[in-house]
Amino acid sequence: MSLDSKGKLDALRELMKERELDVYVVPSEDAHASEYLAPCDSRRAYLTSFTGSAGCAVVTKTEARCWTDGRYWLQAEKQLGEGWTLMKQGLPEVPTWGKWLKEELPPSSRIGIDPTILPFSESSTLTTSLTAEPTTSTLVPVAQNLVDMIWSSRPQRPLDPIFRLEDRYAGEAVKQKLGGLRDKLRKTGSPALVVSQLDEIAWMFNLRGSDIPYNPVFWGYAILTSEDCTLFVHATSLSEPVRDYLHINGITILQYDQVWTSLETLSQVVKEDESKEKDKDNKDKGEKIVKTDKVLIGNKTSWAVAKAMGEDLVEVRRSMVEEAKAIKNATEVEGFRQCHIRDGAALVRYFAWLEEVLAKGEKWTEYDAAMMLESFRRQNKWFMGLSFDTISSTGPNAAVIHYSPPKFDSTVIDPNAMYLCDSGAQYLDGTTDTTRTLHFGEPSAEEKRAFTRVLQGHIALDTVIVPQGTTGYLMWVWLTQTTSSFTHGLSDAIARRPLWSDGLDYRHGTGHGVGSFLNVHEGPQGIGPRPAYNEVPLQAGMVISNEPGYYADGKWGIRIENIIVVKIAETPNNFGGKGYLEFEHVTMCPMQTKLVQVDLLSPAEKQWLNEYHREVREKVAPLLEQMEDQRALAWLEKETAEI
Amino acid sequence: MSLDSKGKLDALRELMKERELDVYVVPSEDAHASEYLAPCDSRRAYLTSFTGSAGCAVVTKTEARCWTDGRYWLQAEKQLGEGWTLMKQGLPEVPTWGKWLKEELPPSSRIGIDPTILPFSESSTLTTSLTAEPTTSTLVPVAQNLVDMIWSSRPQRPLDPIFRLEDRYAGEAVKQKLGGLRDKLRKTGSPALVVSQLDEIAWMFNLRGSDIPYNPVFWGYAILTSEDCTLFVHATSLSEPVRDYLHINGITILQYDQVWTSLETLSQVVKEDESKEKDKDNKDKGEKIVKTDKVLIGNKTSWAVAKAMGEDLVEVRRSMVEEAKAIKNATEVEGFRQCHIRDGAALVRYFAWLEEVLAKGEKWTEYDAAMMLESFRRQNKWFMGLSFDTISSTGPNAAVIHYSPPKFDSTVIDPNAMYLCDSGAQYLDGTTDTTRTLHFGEPSAEEKRAFTRVLQGHIALDTVIVPQGTTGYLMWVWLTQTTSSFTHGLSDAIARRPLWSDGLDYRHGTGHGVGSFLNVHEGPQGIGPRPAYNEVPLQAGMVISNEPGYYADGKWGIRIENIIVVKIAETPNNFGGKGYLEFEHVTMCPMQTKLVQVDLLSPAEKQWLNEYHREVREKVAPLLEQMEDQRALAWLEKETAEI
Repeated sequence: MSLDSKGKLDALRELMKERELDVYVVPSEDAHASEYLAPCDSRRAYLTSFTGSAGCAVVTKTEARCWTDGRYWLQAEKQLGEGWTLMKQGLPEVPTWGKWLKEELPPSSRIGIDPTILPFSESSTLTTSLTAEPTTSTLVPVAQNLVDMIWSSRPQRPLDPIFRLEDRYAGEAVKQKLGGLRDKLRKTGSPALVVSQLDEIAWMFNLRGSDIPYNPVFWGYAILTSEDCTLFVHATSLSEPVRDYLHINGITILQYDQVWTSLETLSQVVKEDESKEKDKDNKDKGEKIVKTDKVLIGNKTSWAVAKAMGEDLVEVRRSMVEEAKAIKNATEVEGFRQCHIRDGAALVRYFAWLEEVLAKGEKWTEYDAAMMLESFRRQNKWFMGLSFDTISSTGPNAAVIHYSPPKFDSTVIDPNAMYLCDSGAQYLDGTTDTTRTLHFGEPSAEEKRAFTRVLQGHIALDTVIVPQGTTGYLMWVWLTQTTSSFTHGLSDAIARRPLWSDGLDYRHGTGHGVGSFLNVHEGPQGIGPRPAYNEVPLQAGMVISNEPGYYADGKWGIRIENIIVVKIAETPNNFGGKGYLEFEHVTMCPMQTKLVQVDLLSPAEKQWLNEYHREVREKVAPLLEQMEDQRALAWLEKETAEI
Repeated sequence: MSLDSKGKLDALRELMKERELDVYVVPSEDAHASEYLAPCDSRRAYLTSFTGSAGCAVVTKTEARCWTDGRYWLQAEKQLGEGWTLMKQGLPEVPTWGKWLKEELPPSSRIGIDPTILPFSESSTLTTSLTAEPTTSTLVPVAQNLVDMIWSSRPQRPLDPIFRLEDRYAGEAVKQKLGGLRDKLRKTGSPALVVSQLDEIAWMFNLRGSDIPYNPVFWGYAILTSEDCTLFVHATSLSEPVRDYLHINGITILQYDQVWTSLETLSQVVKEDESKEKDKDNKDKGEKIVKTDKVLIGNKTSWAVAKAMGEDLVEVRRSMVEEAKAIKNATEVEGFRQCHIRDGAALVRYFAWLEEVLAKGEKWTEYDAAMMLESFRRQNKWFMGLSFDTISSTGPNAAVIHYSPPKFDSTVIDPNAMYLCDSGAQYLDGTTDTTRTLHFGEPSAEEKRAFTRVLQGHIALDTVIVPQGTTGYLMWVWLTQTTSSFTHGLSDAIARRPLWSDGLDYRHGTGHGVGSFLNVHEGPQGIGPRPAYNEVPLQAGMVISNEPGYYADGKWGIRIENIIVVKIAETPNNFGGKGYLEFEHVTMCPMQTKLVQVDLLSPAEKQWLNEYHREVREKVAPLLEQMEDQRALAWLEKETAEI
């Protein structure tokens, strides 16, 4: 039967009492730290009625508190159910929930949590903090998820068919990928790698699915050793051809839930091996790899996985699969180029259609217009779905950075205001993510100036050349004073500089990694003020977004986003001997020159824009002709005219 | 009697034996972590015969090893005395000396070191490392410096007169400075601050000296509490007026060597106070200051100072004196402007003279020419000495970044090669540090292109506008996801970008802080890839150098350095509400347009150069007229002509 907010808390507290828990924590993650949740994993949203993507609920015997960050305070205040208190994470006086647990609970409290939805890197920190004097509380792993137990109308877990991504899209056979990973594993000395991130698993095996919204992945775990490779999936998702393909490549298939017993078995084997003599010749001179005899897991892998092996047997390290996946091979890079031409055609068709209907005086809501955009994309070859929830935003909605139009009652697009459209798709040959900002009426001087500053920042990043080894942030290493070891950080000052000269700025990063027919947001690289970008040098083959913006609260918003591929640059010199890198843009869609304050541009920037538009026209027009979309062709011609 | 290398080692080992030391470590620091050493403190150079500014010597019963970094390997190989082995610090296979001690010595070794010349932040790390199993060695503080004991010809310690820097130069009275420091101290809850950096002491008390080469400072320590302030100096350096001035301002004067007993007394007092009730009202809402009940010392303060109080009583923190000193007041900023005009005049006179004599065919060595430059500076009002050893380098010498011409046999300046001159002076109203690169013949296309790239990088940094709070590197903080907390890093990609586009780069930072009639190199801020710059936001009143360069090994070198002052920028907008900052250049000396490849410059860059040269001409010409230097006036006219 359906419970109201109070009913949910009562039922939960009953279950807590049975298990002698003083507290139960409900984070907003799933078992694989997925960016988007399948509905069945949205436990925190179910419990609190607050539906924002980030937040953690903590239930004690007498209180119910929900932490969330600034993006969602307004939304949480509206949505939180009866009995819930909002904790505004980020305000100086508001402790994190971990700190709150430590400072506010009586000593020796028992704090329960589902160990599959808490990363081991976090559980160990929490445990250390909570068990210390004078708190001496315990973090208790509770195998059965208590929210699932009270959630009578819980949706089913999606178990869609898993399919093979052919080598002609993947560019590298699974045998080679596993061989490369085994090489890296050997160098670390570690006996095994456990993979729990769904996009990493999809990449490793050249398989795809659709169990997570927008991400073509499937539920799974994988264990890789020097000899074996096991994939844990739901049997019902596998067809015979896929089974055969996996078996031919030496991969053992086990049921998804068998991972726990397999991890225990693995730990036995590892402990036996540890007592044997180690191979001391396995030294790689010059490599900076620190050796270990523990099983490697990524920093988002769950506490449950670590516990299944024994926490002492496990070491958290930056994932080697993530690192390998970040470097796109030549096939994948060409795939990005191709799918962006088709995606660009869809965008041109959409904008041409939108401009026409608005000029006619038709009323279109943000959401419904986004549906039209999707239908244009659907007509593209190899379209496999959207890569994220389309941000289709008119006027002031565009100033809300994480805005997405609701299905019902979204705003009618104002033909005399700026329109920001951030959208993307999955194709067999790549993933797209493009933002264009347009004005279908007469933009103000202020809007044009801000748009031009954003454009200048975009161009600055697009055209930069950097030494090999530069990170998207910078490298946190101790610089030796030799002349051989010197690492740079790009930081996104490069993109912000034109905005700063006008006293403008934007409160998000400038670039994120993008997967190849995988997650639209990928690590480990990025460009912006995120410390994690600190450790990852840019390398040829990486794919990143270039998306500076400016948001005038309550009025309008601008963002100009292309996807760029890192490639080797040909420079007149090669100081340092390690080579230089540059970016190649693959996104093919006009940037509205109506919004450009031309006298602000330098001659070089004008040239860039004209050359970009010439390239867009040359690549996209043939496709539009094939599709016989005259309206789009005319719009393309107009929008790519030289300034 | 004079000892040769072997003799020194024998004598040292005798002393070690007497004290049952297995090892004796001789670093290259003095008791105050000064950048330059008084000759009497150059123990490592005396012992090893290697005279480079950085290096650490380790003597065991049977071995003698000297660690130094890449700048000095060549020099060390030539200079190291008999019995010494060079350890090339920075090569991956070469451990640091601390690591070497841990890994190579037998367990339970006794490692002696003078505790006054090892920072406490390093001794505690070393001690932890060495005492751990299985090493169980001991770091032994040896009160008498063993090298001093064998150094029969050891120079006397300079004890020059200490004088007062009048408020009309300092801009802030000592009473105010101490009040400000006491305010900060109170907020931390700490009972006392111990200051050991000589420039911090000079700044706090508005006193100057000349005990360290190039730095107008004097030997001293200071202890500041809420009630008292004690300055420990050599009595012979003080005159009656200075004593009176200090007494009037409530400062107790004690002999330099009394600091050790005073620190012991301080520790007694602190321990007694700790047992009393703490004042709980001392909470500063919104301040991010972590409270402590320990005595504060800086991270370069010696082990000896910490030991004198008891290591448990002491906490290492970024120095509040250094932070205060970094923000120049309006008087100091105006002082920088003024002294740079005078200094610019000296440079113009020098370059005009040099160009003339070289054209006449006269032979001048780098060193002798630098002497001429110094004599031009001496004619300036308020000149107090040079701020560092002049880098006067012709042709390939300029590609050696840390080159300084030797007194005898320096290279004759080649009139047909590039000449790089990096020099600076101390004035009562400020400190200068300027680099200009000139060609007195016909520069090659390659030289001009590289010079222009460096110039473009310089202009890029000179003209950037950044949000308040931007660091010279970036801030290593966990970003909350609220819109209120977002910190940027400038990084010096801004300055390197034009070089990178040609596949060029330089292996040093782009900017260091500068003192006001104090050390030419000051922290905590800087611009470049140094992790320490990571924690320090740029603020109005900070003074930094802007010095990108390019060095073609074995051929020539380029650097273009101005001093810039951070000031509040007036921007059309104020996104974020915290304001924006920009740089004002104070250095007034032409940049040789003969070396500029004009077609590479954007219109804005050309304009910058012409405006800069107009400014230089307007400010420096009147001074040259006063000095009646027609040659210099003509040269200035020529070099500041519009391009």
